[in-house]
Amino acid sequence: MYQFQCDYSEGAHPRIMQRLMETNLEQTVGYGMDEYCEQAREAVKKAVGCEDADVHFLVGGTQANATVISSVLRPYQGVICAATGHINVHETGAIEHSGHKVLALPAEKGLLKAAQIRQAMEEHLAEDGPEHTVQPGMVYISFSSEVGTVYSLEQLKEISAVCREYGLPLFIDGARMGYGLAAEGGDVRLEDIASLADVFYLGGTKQGALFGEAVVIVNDALKKDFRYNIKQNGGMLAKGRLLGIQFLTLFEDGLYFELSQHAVSLAMKIRDAFRAKGFAFLVDSPTNQQFPILDNETMERLSKDFRFSVWQKMDAGHTAVRFCTSWATRPEAVDALISAL
Amino acid sequence: MYQFQCDYSEGAHPRIMQRLMETNLEQTVGYGMDEYCEQAREAVKKAVGCEDADVHFLVGGTQANATVISSVLRPYQGVICAATGHINVHETGAIEHSGHKVLALPAEKGLLKAAQIRQAMEEHLAEDGPEHTVQPGMVYISFSSEVGTVYSLEQLKEISAVCREYGLPLFIDGARMGYGLAAEGGDVRLEDIASLADVFYLGGTKQGALFGEAVVIVNDALKKDFRYNIKQNGGMLAKGRLLGIQFLTLFEDGLYFELSQHAVSLAMKIRDAFRAKGFAFLVDSPTNQQFPILDNETMERLSKDFRFSVWQKMDAGHTAVRFCTSWATRPEAVDALISAL
Amino acid sequence: MYQFQCDYSEGAHPRIMQRLMETNLEQTVGYGMDEYCEQAREAVKKAVGCEDADVHFLVGGTQANATVISSVLRPYQGVICAATGHINVHETGAIEHSGHKVLALPAEKGLLKAAQIRQAMEEHLAEDGPEHTVQPGMVYISFSSEVGTVYSLEQLKEISAVCREYGLPLFIDGARMGYGLAAEGGDVRLEDIASLADVFYLGGTKQGALFGEAVVIVNDALKKDFRYNIKQNGGMLAKGRLLGIQFLTLFEDGLYFELSQHAVSLAMKIRDAFRAKGFAFLVDSPTNQQFPILDNETMERLSKDFRFSVWQKMDAGHTAVRFCTSWATRPEAVDALISAL
Amino acid sequence: MYQFQCDYSEGAHPRIMQRLMETNLEQTVGYGMDEYCEQAREAVKKAVGCEDADVHFLVGGTQANATVISSVLRPYQGVICAATGHINVHETGAIEHSGHKVLALPAEKGLLKAAQIRQAMEEHLAEDGPEHTVQPGMVYISFSSEVGTVYSLEQLKEISAVCREYGLPLFIDGARMGYGLAAEGGDVRLEDIASLADVFYLGGTKQGALFGEAVVIVNDALKKDFRYNIKQNGGMLAKGRLLGIQFLTLFEDGLYFELSQHAVSLAMKIRDAFRAKGFAFLVDSPTNQQFPILDNETMERLSKDFRFSVWQKMDAGHTAVRFCTSWATRPEAVDALISAL
Repeated sequence: MYQFQCDYSEGAHPRIMQRLMETNLEQTVGYGMDEYCEQAREAVKKAVGCEDADVHFLVGGTQANATVISSVLRPYQGVICAATGHINVHETGAIEHSGHKVLALPAEKGLLKAAQIRQAMEEHLAEDGPEHTVQPGMVYISFSSEVGTVYSLEQLKEISAVCREYGLPLFIDGARMGYGLAAEGGDVRLEDIASLADVFYLGGTKQGALFGEAVVIVNDALKKDFRYNIKQNGGMLAKGRLLGIQFLTLFEDGLYFELSQHAVSLAMKIRDAFRAKGFAFLVDSPTNQQFPILDNETMERLSKDFRFSVWQKMDAGHTAVRFCTSWATRPEAVDALISAL
Repeated sequence: MYQFQCDYSEGAHPRIMQRLMETNLEQTVGYGMDEYCEQAREAVKKAVGCEDADVHFLVGGTQANATVISSVLRPYQGVICAATGHINVHETGAIEHSGHKVLALPAEKGLLKAAQIRQAMEEHLAEDGPEHTVQPGMVYISFSSEVGTVYSLEQLKEISAVCREYGLPLFIDGARMGYGLAAEGGDVRLEDIASLADVFYLGGTKQGALFGEAVVIVNDALKKDFRYNIKQNGGMLAKGRLLGIQFLTLFEDGLYFELSQHAVSLAMKIRDAFRAKGFAFLVDSPTNQQFPILDNETMERLSKDFRFSVWQKMDAGHTAVRFCTSWATRPEAVDALISAL
Repeated sequence: MYQFQCDYSEGAHPRIMQRLMETNLEQTVGYGMDEYCEQAREAVKKAVGCEDADVHFLVGGTQANATVISSVLRPYQGVICAATGHINVHETGAIEHSGHKVLALPAEKGLLKAAQIRQAMEEHLAEDGPEHTVQPGMVYISFSSEVGTVYSLEQLKEISAVCREYGLPLFIDGARMGYGLAAEGGDVRLEDIASLADVFYLGGTKQGALFGEAVVIVNDALKKDFRYNIKQNGGMLAKGRLLGIQFLTLFEDGLYFELSQHAVSLAMKIRDAFRAKGFAFLVDSPTNQQFPILDNETMERLSKDFRFSVWQKMDAGHTAVRFCTSWATRPEAVDALISAL
Repeated sequence: MYQFQCDYSEGAHPRIMQRLMETNLEQTVGYGMDEYCEQAREAVKKAVGCEDADVHFLVGGTQANATVISSVLRPYQGVICAATGHINVHETGAIEHSGHKVLALPAEKGLLKAAQIRQAMEEHLAEDGPEHTVQPGMVYISFSSEVGTVYSLEQLKEISAVCREYGLPLFIDGARMGYGLAAEGGDVRLEDIASLADVFYLGGTKQGALFGEAVVIVNDALKKDFRYNIKQNGGMLAKGRLLGIQFLTLFEDGLYFELSQHAVSLAMKIRDAFRAKGFAFLVDSPTNQQFPILDNETMERLSKDFRFSVWQKMDAGHTAVRFCTSWATRPEAVDALISAL
């Protein structure tokens, strides 16, 4: 059975496991104040090209999103988000649990447009009594998005410009940041993310680590006391070095980018194979998630040897499914899938 | 200048003011435990035809909505609501502030359909890992709705039946309950509300009182410790008798219903006058809110002598506006408006 | 039966009732944007001697406390408070409900000391890993306190100075502000409150109004978007003019201070009478609340004709009770009490 | 340098690391639904002697506490806790962040007494208007406590009996459960915990795992939908098997108890050595945390070769410090410490 149903099926890249083994009995201080975390923070700052950034390591994505968003917003503010955004649909209302409305806007292919953000702000400001409605307080986008798409550099610049015009901090969910940066035809570099966002994170869980997300705070105004927020939200790992060691391994010499490239190039092979066979796609994705629309017969046949996610019923005879590659996907698995097609 | 822009422009019905004056220097215990509140609770229970109900008096609608909803839901649950619902758009995220997502469904003419509720539940239950999404925990509807429409008895029965099938308490926001019950062509009685809902409230603020909403809890499972919720949410009025006196006056001999009838019959006159002149309406409302679509010239002309709300820009030359009547609207004001047309 | 059990047994001062009657059928805009509120805000600003202050009218004290405190604090911050403080013991955890810890310090006679605030801050800052503990984010005191005591001007200055040294906004709960300012032997004026606090409120509920608290924000940094907070917390009264009319009447010509003086002078008579008879007191109060310690026999005898609150069981034979006077207390009632003694 | 400052300085027990290595490239489903988690749940249930229990694996202690407590309480309820309890002092107000007051009671040696719980409930119920105060809704105790002490079986039974009498679920924080069960002279077994508590957790972080706490829900009424709470609180680990593998290793053949025994027996050696030299202790602890009171000279001398925590300044010349042992402490380190004494 070959598994393509998600990008977190395995443990961690062997170099990470090796490092964890080697350091296992070392004694360090806790809560992210150890030497490995310090080195990892430096490696991340170098990778994003921003020496002044604050870097914090959290365990998971929902935790990272809730911690960042609740630290930025005032009580009466909400976060603008694509309707397909992870915080809007797949985090059991963690943002609302922290007291804030997710201001979901209709999204085409998982992406927000700068003009939508402007319109939302203008509509709020035009209210007769804006205080009766939730004030937009920040913008959340995902890169790559929940359906595998990416913003172009131009689109990101427009979004960032509108956010700055209205004083809305821009937060980029990077659970799949590496895969987004490795997108076929993409023109966004990590340095662009760091210069256009106010805060973002680099996902580890889906990108080669056992777990972990590296939150990077670029905007000085958002840095103060962030560790209090982490602790209060239950995200301060006692043995913080586990996060430091993982992110140090991923970022000290480019492993993060290699692994991302690996996953995306295999995904492109899968895409091309489905395309060649005439299958349509739910959305045209240049990253590690592919959403071909299968007829029932093909779906049944493939499901004997391959595990994939059912995404969306299209009609009685067709279903959009998701094939994910990851840092751990073996080329043989992809070859087997292509042969089966 | 004649005012039609909302239904809370004046103070209270003169009989209420008279009663407040007469009792002003009486000494009573606080927090709703006085004799007037006790009598008012009895009067409300009699009016709704449910002796076993618990009745609580709160000051305002946003407060009543947040207190009821947060008392019903478990932390991970959300409230199903029409996208036009007051809690979704005009309460500054008070529900989210209490930790819960508003699960907004598209609404036609301000009304939810039973089938939508069923679909939302079925979609949630069909999730592969429903715990990653907010669990629908109750249903909120408004009667009359935010755009003046009302459910038929048949529609309410269907909604109630679906709610009971799925174990979802049904909460009816009755900020304009009286106007809804007096709807032209409506077939819903207050007793129906009490037998089909699990909890609802009878609005006072827009219906003849200075302020106040009477929350009626019908479902035994929702009654426990409700006063703690009121206090914690800042809704326990020290001089609770002010609420008791008002609701006693409104309900002891049917004043509430008379005032509602008064407002609706004047609104029908306004509706007929606009119709006769060929104006279209944003929505066909049988209650005290009317939403004619005015051309720019008419809008400008009428705004010289009449105050009304701008509701929605339709196109460059037309705007939907709102004319409200209330318990306090004078027939002369309506006549003047009709003449002006 | 003469009532002394609390200071909110009656309605409102007759001049307020008169004004409410006169204006009852006037049509105004809602939510505190009317002319009466505007005039009342001016009158309050004049009374507190601070033209730049922002003034907002809320309905009740718990609501005012929760709205102010949650608008000031960051999510990981708590509010320093005397253990006897109203927010710590009698608001059903409304502050915690808004997400914040009440950092209760032991209080002598209901009062905090500047040195305690300094110590709490120093202990927090001295933590090895302060982010594991709640950060003190503001200070809450009551004037007069929950047991009738008041700070001297010197004490208030010291508290204010420590707060400013550590960047802690100082919030004064003035549910009984007038009675505190009228304290026998007190040296604090309302202008002092306004210059030493960052935000405070002037209680109406216990001081002559039907209901209402006037929040005065002196510190510019705390003013932004406060109306959003009011609305989200369910505190924005639709017919806001009811609050405007009441506070205008109380403050336009000094009625607030007259009524406070009335209550305190009657309380001093009660105190003197108990003293003369040799009764001890739970605390020495110079304001409208008096806490004599009664033997069982006296308690039983007095309770036949007078209603008062049981405060604290001292031993098998003695109980501290509370006698409250208010703006509405009649001198005859006090005379009757003194005779009965 | 020998480290005794905490019990989470190292990684994980070598058998856990070995198992993680061996399974690293296996593909499993996520979120705790994999085979390892299933086996680990069975092993835990067998160890606690309760087949009907629900077992959930969370990442850390603060997260586990906040998730359990907020899932149990109604909005207006608080949790009774020793003033020294971890949730009261070292979790940055995570419980308050979830909306609930920590009802801290004075604790002798870190332990609550049954009589204190009874008194707190009786005082609440005796209130004239209990709804103005926070309703106690559950009880939280730690085993072993934050200062190393443990309850006797008799004490636990009394606490449990009072809790059941008043309908208060009893929650036992077992971050150091193993060390508590291994207490010298202790008479509590894990089966007792499971029969006396309603919900508890078995700490992994301080007891041999990289991270992780196993929440065991015994009371059926608390089981429903707990996974939603985990997800909403950011505690659902994507690669849940990491937790399953660790707890399976700890519980399948008693490793958890062996490691606990190891740590406690070394701690007893340390205790005996300090005692023999005449040092007093802050508290008499039979578990892995020891709190000798050092004179300045000794403190300085020891700190050259040993790392330990400064706990509490006693007077100008003396300080209580903490020496922790753990599953990873080497006997040579303890010998070196004893020699140095």
